[in-house]
Amino acid sequence: MPAPRTSDPSALFEAARGGDRVALARLLSLVERGGDPSRTVAGLAFKTPGDTYSVGITGAPGAGKSTLTDQLITIGREQGVDGAGKVAVLAVDPSSPFSGGAILGDRVRMQSHALDDGVFIRSMATRGHMGGLSVAVPDAVRVLSAVGMPLVLVETVGVGQQEVEVAAATDTTIVVVNPGWGDAIQANKAGLLEIADLFVINKADRPGTAQTRRDLELMLDLTELGAYRPPIVETVASKGEGIEALWTAVGEHRAHQIEHGTLDRMRRRRLELEFHQIVAARVGERIDAMADTDHFADINSAMVAGDIDPYQAADRLLAEVLRDRPGS
Amino acid sequence: MPAPRTSDPSALFEAARGGDRVALARLLSLVERGGDPSRTVAGLAFKTPGDTYSVGITGAPGAGKSTLTDQLITIGREQGVDGAGKVAVLAVDPSSPFSGGAILGDRVRMQSHALDDGVFIRSMATRGHMGGLSVAVPDAVRVLSAVGMPLVLVETVGVGQQEVEVAAATDTTIVVVNPGWGDAIQANKAGLLEIADLFVINKADRPGTAQTRRDLELMLDLTELGAYRPPIVETVASKGEGIEALWTAVGEHRAHQIEHGTLDRMRRRRLELEFHQIVAARVGERIDAMADTDHFADINSAMVAGDIDPYQAADRLLAEVLRDRPGS
Repeated sequence: MPAPRTSDPSALFEAARGGDRVALARLLSLVERGGDPSRTVAGLAFKTPGDTYSVGITGAPGAGKSTLTDQLITIGREQGVDGAGKVAVLAVDPSSPFSGGAILGDRVRMQSHALDDGVFIRSMATRGHMGGLSVAVPDAVRVLSAVGMPLVLVETVGVGQQEVEVAAATDTTIVVVNPGWGDAIQANKAGLLEIADLFVINKADRPGTAQTRRDLELMLDLTELGAYRPPIVETVASKGEGIEALWTAVGEHRAHQIEHGTLDRMRRRRLELEFHQIVAARVGERIDAMADTDHFADINSAMVAGDIDPYQAADRLLAEVLRDRPGS
Repeated sequence: MPAPRTSDPSALFEAARGGDRVALARLLSLVERGGDPSRTVAGLAFKTPGDTYSVGITGAPGAGKSTLTDQLITIGREQGVDGAGKVAVLAVDPSSPFSGGAILGDRVRMQSHALDDGVFIRSMATRGHMGGLSVAVPDAVRVLSAVGMPLVLVETVGVGQQEVEVAAATDTTIVVVNPGWGDAIQANKAGLLEIADLFVINKADRPGTAQTRRDLELMLDLTELGAYRPPIVETVASKGEGIEALWTAVGEHRAHQIEHGTLDRMRRRRLELEFHQIVAARVGERIDAMADTDHFADINSAMVAGDIDPYQAADRLLAEVLRDRPGS
């Protein structure tokens, strides 16, 4: 069935649920672009939850994230989640103007799966979307879930805070490091521990692998962990080595979460976070809209003249915009 | 004079204005940490504007930003802005958990200026600050201005969107590329053109320099530019080559802006942007505070139960929080 010649979200949504990949791609474009159509798509997907497991892959440039993702596609296709072997990938582009070369390379690399009907790869860059990646990516995952994708891999190209958060907003988050990154791990341990469900030492055929493992183990030893201790898996993604072990570790994390009830709890928390972010973005839009008003211009003039500082200007404006609730 | 044993912003501010570097460092720590003391410091600095020129240095990891900054410190000390040769550097840390090694290296490198009283180097990482780097860095620049620093260099370590924006929020923004980055330049031209006042091809003793220059020139040729065309300067920062030419180009950009009145206009615009960002951050705080209320809990429950999607939840909450102005 060809994709309906329409940009109507509901028609596209029905077609995508029927297996139409072009319609699915168009839906994700709508999500990416933001605005009212995006909201409609998000609403439809929210009302039609599927049974999807999401895996985030993050790490510094050059760590081998794309090659790992490529291998996870292959093993995901073979072994599937609960036996269902379709795989969707969201490759999240940095909003920074400094990583184009890498992205182009990644896109080309993943083309090895381009002819596989069971694989759906999509890059997302969301400068235009209200709330940015933090809002668009969860919406996109929900769309992929609604159309029946059992596994969604979210790979981030950049390492800006928002992109890392996006990769971390998945059921299992894989942090990829390389041998010799001891100093970087040490310097960033708080951030890494916050997001990692699973560490991968990729390029583990290189010198320094044992030391990097010791650095990670020590970091974990010194941390107050819950019932789950993030495992450390060694891979050589370029040769396909360690991918089975990685896939098993992802499955074990999933099983642990289901057993302890944390999967649902974490998903609820992420939903609440989304809610916060949408509210914040919506308020931002409202403020932008106010920029045309006389009141805003008056405050701005006072600030530019040096009579009030930007914080005082903000206070004045907010006294106008916010409805103070009784007692607050 | 020793720094006052106090965390009182006004006392620290007076001491820093008297030349006390320890007091200055403490002031910047207050700015970094955010909250009420930060506001007080920002307010004091705003009321005491100095005559400071700010230069941002941004580019992908490995481009040689720190080495260039190091060289700009040296030439800034020698030649100064309007003859005044003090230099302050804000090295903006990524909020991402993935660049610690690089940062540590940078810190060590810049220590060559550590014993020079006319150089003040400070790294900023601002996870805690309401509004993040976009609010904290302009405040810090203003503090450095208030204590009499004629030149402030803002170097960003990471390339997340926020960090790039911070580097771009300076009087002259230098974008550093390397030979062979043609594809990356091509892929990111819109973002680069938006922020660059000046391009540096660093490591210009390597093959591909001429081609990279042609790529940049072509990009500029195809762009609707105003009266100012960003120049392209070739440097080998590690050998100090091209630094004079870079310094001259910065001075020419400054002169052009003063002549055409754009310096004041751009500064006003940046101040307005800060105002927007503070308002948005303040609203974010308000929303967080609301998370404890029954009303918020009710909306959240309806969303978690799947009755309303996150966008509908946001609409409901905002109807409560925002005071709708007549006619809007």
